[in-house]
Amino acid sequence: MRMRKKTWAAPFLEAHPELAINDPKNYKGKWKEYLNCQSLHVEIGCGKGDYCTQMSVKEEHSGWIGIERERNVAAVAVKKAVEMESKRLCFIVQDAGQLSEWFEEKEIDVIHLNFSDPWPKSGYKKRRLSHRGFIEQYKQCLAEQGRVIMKTDNSTLFEFSLLEFADCGWKLAEVSVDFRRKEHPEDALTEYEKRFLELGQPIYRAIWQKNG
Amino acid sequence: MRMRKKTWAAPFLEAHPELAINDPKNYKGKWKEYLNCQSLHVEIGCGKGDYCTQMSVKEEHSGWIGIERERNVAAVAVKKAVEMESKRLCFIVQDAGQLSEWFEEKEIDVIHLNFSDPWPKSGYKKRRLSHRGFIEQYKQCLAEQGRVIMKTDNSTLFEFSLLEFADCGWKLAEVSVDFRRKEHPEDALTEYEKRFLELGQPIYRAIWQKNG
Repeated sequence: MRMRKKTWAAPFLEAHPELAINDPKNYKGKWKEYLNCQSLHVEIGCGKGDYCTQMSVKEEHSGWIGIERERNVAAVAVKKAVEMESKRLCFIVQDAGQLSEWFEEKEIDVIHLNFSDPWPKSGYKKRRLSHRGFIEQYKQCLAEQGRVIMKTDNSTLFEFSLLEFADCGWKLAEVSVDFRRKEHPEDALTEYEKRFLELGQPIYRAIWQKNG
Repeated sequence: MRMRKKTWAAPFLEAHPELAINDPKNYKGKWKEYLNCQSLHVEIGCGKGDYCTQMSVKEEHSGWIGIERERNVAAVAVKKAVEMESKRLCFIVQDAGQLSEWFEEKEIDVIHLNFSDPWPKSGYKKRRLSHRGFIEQYKQCLAEQGRVIMKTDNSTLFEFSLLEFADCGWKLAEVSVDFRRKEHPEDALTEYEKRFLELGQPIYRAIWQKNG
């Protein structure tokens, strides 16, 4: 997601180090303690934070970490968290490529990939968040029964992901090619999702489990 | 597929025993010889035979068997085959539940499930052609690198099938949640498929491989 540079973004992020974590390595192995939660959810590419802020309110015992590398976008997410006075939510404003350096083995319970950049050109496949390079990192950081949950409007990314996780030996636990044809009050709508639904596009969703 | 009773259907089928095979058990282990082909394709629930008749012309070295239990429907398929004077095509006008009695172990190369009855009610799950009961039979009859190819417009059946084949340990080799967004001149359109495309509905397609 691209947006204009916000002059307030950098100082705002710096003014909220409890929400916009500066050095995530320092929290390795201690995230559940820090967020005072029983299960740890990480949303990679959280954008303006609609999903993780809503979900941290919906689910009482869950802690949420939103990862977003664009500072101007992440600042909007952090602002929402400040306004909500959320206690079980924080953000990492960096590229997710370092994931396994920030989290202890088996520390994460659920990884969420919502409307990730599809990187449509074949030469950029490795950047897709469901590429096997990332899947290997997820495997390391996820708990024994840990899961990856993906929602997307992009058919090519969805198809790629189904094949990639299958190739890596993950178990397909749930799948929907039109997730919003039924009501799902347990699951928050993201900003993108609302837009796609208004356009009548289907939302694809899958859940993969590390150990089948 | 339901249609009115055709008085000509039964005598027509009886008049063409070389195309509407009466006792398929007699051909067990000899289908490739009978159809004079290198690879054997079986379409289960072939309806009026649009797909298998077209494909038997498209693919030079493939033999095709269409299975359809409704005699009034199968008669239309056989009529097409008679008109085409196809040599590498025949039909079994019976319920596919006996599959493993008609085919030798590893005799079939590809099984096709096109727009199968979705049996939407949960109590009828076992009748779906991608239920594990059928998958076990496919496993037995399919060659080492044998595949099942499914096309459907029904999202619930497609989702069910993805989970069911995954649970049975089959490898997902290809998947598309909108197969006809690209041209596929190698693949024939079925009668149903044409209708769904006119309605703007996506065609779902997956290929599973027995041994991944």
